[in-house]
Amino acid sequence: MIGQSRRTFVQTEFELAYLDHIHACNNANLSRYARFRIDDVPVGALRSEFATALIGLGSDFVRDENGEYGFGAHIKTSEQRNDTLIAATTALRDQGVIRQLHGEKFDIRNRLADEPLCQLDRFAMPYFGCRSWGVHMNGFVRKADGIHIWIAHRSKNKPTYPGMLDNMVAGGQPTGLGFRENMIKECGEEAGIPEDIAQNLTPIGAISYLYETDEGLKPDVMVNFDLELPAEFLPTCADGEVERFELMPIAEVAEIVRSGFTFKFNCALVVIDFLIRHGHLTADNEPSYCELVAGLHRQLNP
Amino acid sequence: MIGQSRRTFVQTEFELAYLDHIHACNNANLSRYARFRIDDVPVGALRSEFATALIGLGSDFVRDENGEYGFGAHIKTSEQRNDTLIAATTALRDQGVIRQLHGEKFDIRNRLADEPLCQLDRFAMPYFGCRSWGVHMNGFVRKADGIHIWIAHRSKNKPTYPGMLDNMVAGGQPTGLGFRENMIKECGEEAGIPEDIAQNLTPIGAISYLYETDEGLKPDVMVNFDLELPAEFLPTCADGEVERFELMPIAEVAEIVRSGFTFKFNCALVVIDFLIRHGHLTADNEPSYCELVAGLHRQLNP
Repeated sequence: MIGQSRRTFVQTEFELAYLDHIHACNNANLSRYARFRIDDVPVGALRSEFATALIGLGSDFVRDENGEYGFGAHIKTSEQRNDTLIAATTALRDQGVIRQLHGEKFDIRNRLADEPLCQLDRFAMPYFGCRSWGVHMNGFVRKADGIHIWIAHRSKNKPTYPGMLDNMVAGGQPTGLGFRENMIKECGEEAGIPEDIAQNLTPIGAISYLYETDEGLKPDVMVNFDLELPAEFLPTCADGEVERFELMPIAEVAEIVRSGFTFKFNCALVVIDFLIRHGHLTADNEPSYCELVAGLHRQLNP
Repeated sequence: MIGQSRRTFVQTEFELAYLDHIHACNNANLSRYARFRIDDVPVGALRSEFATALIGLGSDFVRDENGEYGFGAHIKTSEQRNDTLIAATTALRDQGVIRQLHGEKFDIRNRLADEPLCQLDRFAMPYFGCRSWGVHMNGFVRKADGIHIWIAHRSKNKPTYPGMLDNMVAGGQPTGLGFRENMIKECGEEAGIPEDIAQNLTPIGAISYLYETDEGLKPDVMVNFDLELPAEFLPTCADGEVERFELMPIAEVAEIVRSGFTFKFNCALVVIDFLIRHGHLTADNEPSYCELVAGLHRQLNP
C-alpha cells in the first residue's frame, strides 16, 4: 500500500476524478425552488410540493405576489417564528411530508455575523433549504512513511448513508455551542477522544456546497479541524454511529476518494481539502488543482 | 505583542476588516472589457483603449460582429500567435500603449489541464486580461510562544509596489517550469534559501482573484506553499528585490493585515489564508470567516 504513495494520478475518460466529488456535492437544480424569506431576508428555498403543504397548514405561512414564501404578517418575533416552526414541522411530520424530526435545533441565518432569526429542527433544514453549518475533523498520525488518516466506517444501522466511509469525527452545529466547543464534544462522543487530546484541534478552514436530496436543498458549510494524534492512540466507537475506525496511509485514502463514491458525499470533499493542504495533491500532479480548490469553496448566495 | 494573540477581532464601521482585502483584490469592473478569444476559447479581456490600439496595428487582430476580439484568420498556429504577439507588444510598447515589457514569457491558457495556446510577455498579461499563475511562500518558524512569520519589505526601488510588505518569497510562473521547481528557484534567488531547506516546501493550496489596474485585468491564481524554517535560519536579500526580511509573531502580522493596506494587495490574501489554515482566524473569533474562506477562492470564469 505504501508503494501507492508514489503513484501518479492519471485521469482517463473512463475513470472518476476528484472533481467529480465537487460536482456530486453541487448537484442542486435551483430552478425547482421558490425563495423562502424572513422579513426581507432570503434564508431558504422550497420545492413546490413542500411549499403547497406549508401553505395548506393555514395562515401562518404565505405566498407573495412574486411567488416567494414567508411567515404570515402576524408572525413577527423570533419566538413566534420558533413556535410556528415547531407546530408546522410537527404537523408536516404527522402528515408524512417531513420524514422525521431530530429534536436538535439549528440556527437560521445566512452568515455567522448575523444574529439567528429563529431556530429549526435539524432534520427539517433541507425542506426549508436553509443554510446549515457542521464540523468535520481530519484525524491523522505522522509515521516514518508519511501521514496516515483515520477514517470511520459508518454503522450499517445508521438511517443516513449506512456503511459508507466518513471523516474520523463530524457533526451538525446546533444552536448555542461554539464550533470548537462542539467539535471537542463530538470528539468525545463519536471517537472517545479525551479532551486533553482534543485540545490540540487546529481549525483549518471551511468547505461549502449546494446539495440537493429527496427532501430539499442543503446549502451547507463544513467548518473543519485537523487533529494530529499520537501513534499509540486508538479511537473507540463511543456512540454506536461508527462501526469501526481504520488508520490508512494518505495515498490509500486518496485513491479511495478518487476512484469511487464510498465516502459519504460531503466527507470526500473534506478529504480532498486535506490532501491539498498537506501537499499530496499539487498544481504539479493534479490537472484540476485550481478547479478543485475553487470548487471546495463556492459562494452560497441566499 | 504576544498578548495580541488573544485579542478578539471586533469590526466597527470605522475599522478595516480582513474582508476588505478580498474586496480590494476583486475590484474589477467587467463591463469595461471586451472578450479576447483564441479560436473559440475566451482567454482574455481588453479595455477599449487597448483594443483600439491593437486593431490599429493592422490585420493581425480583428474585432468580430459580437464586439469580441481575436487573431486574424491567417494566424493559425501557436507559433504564429507567438510571433504576432511579440511584434504587437513590441510595437505597442514603442507607441507607449504598453508601459514596459519584461522579457519573461507566461503561458496563455485557462486551466492547468489545457495545453498552452501561446505565450505572452509577463508585463503584457494585464493588457490582454489573460489568466496568470504565480507562486507565493509563507516562511515561518515555530517558537515556544507560537508561530512567527517571515515577511519581506519590498525594495523602495522596485517599480511595482515599492516599500510595501510582501510574503517571504513570491514570483510569477513562467513558461516551462513546474510550480515546485519555480518556487525552489525563487527561494534561492529572493531569500537565499538553500535547496536542502527548500525541499521542505509543502504545497497547501491556491488563491484566486480578479484584480484591475491601470493596465487592465488580472485574473490571477496564486499557487501557495508553506515552509517551516529552522529558528536559526536567516534569509538574505539575494537579488535586491527585497530591502530586508523581518520575523514577526503571527498576531502582529495578523493585525498589520487587518488594520491597513501595508501589504502588497495580493500578499495580504496569502497571509489571511495562512491565518485560517493555522487556526489563528476561526469560525469562533472571526464573524466573516465563511465569507473570507469563499472569497479567497473565487471561480475565474473566462
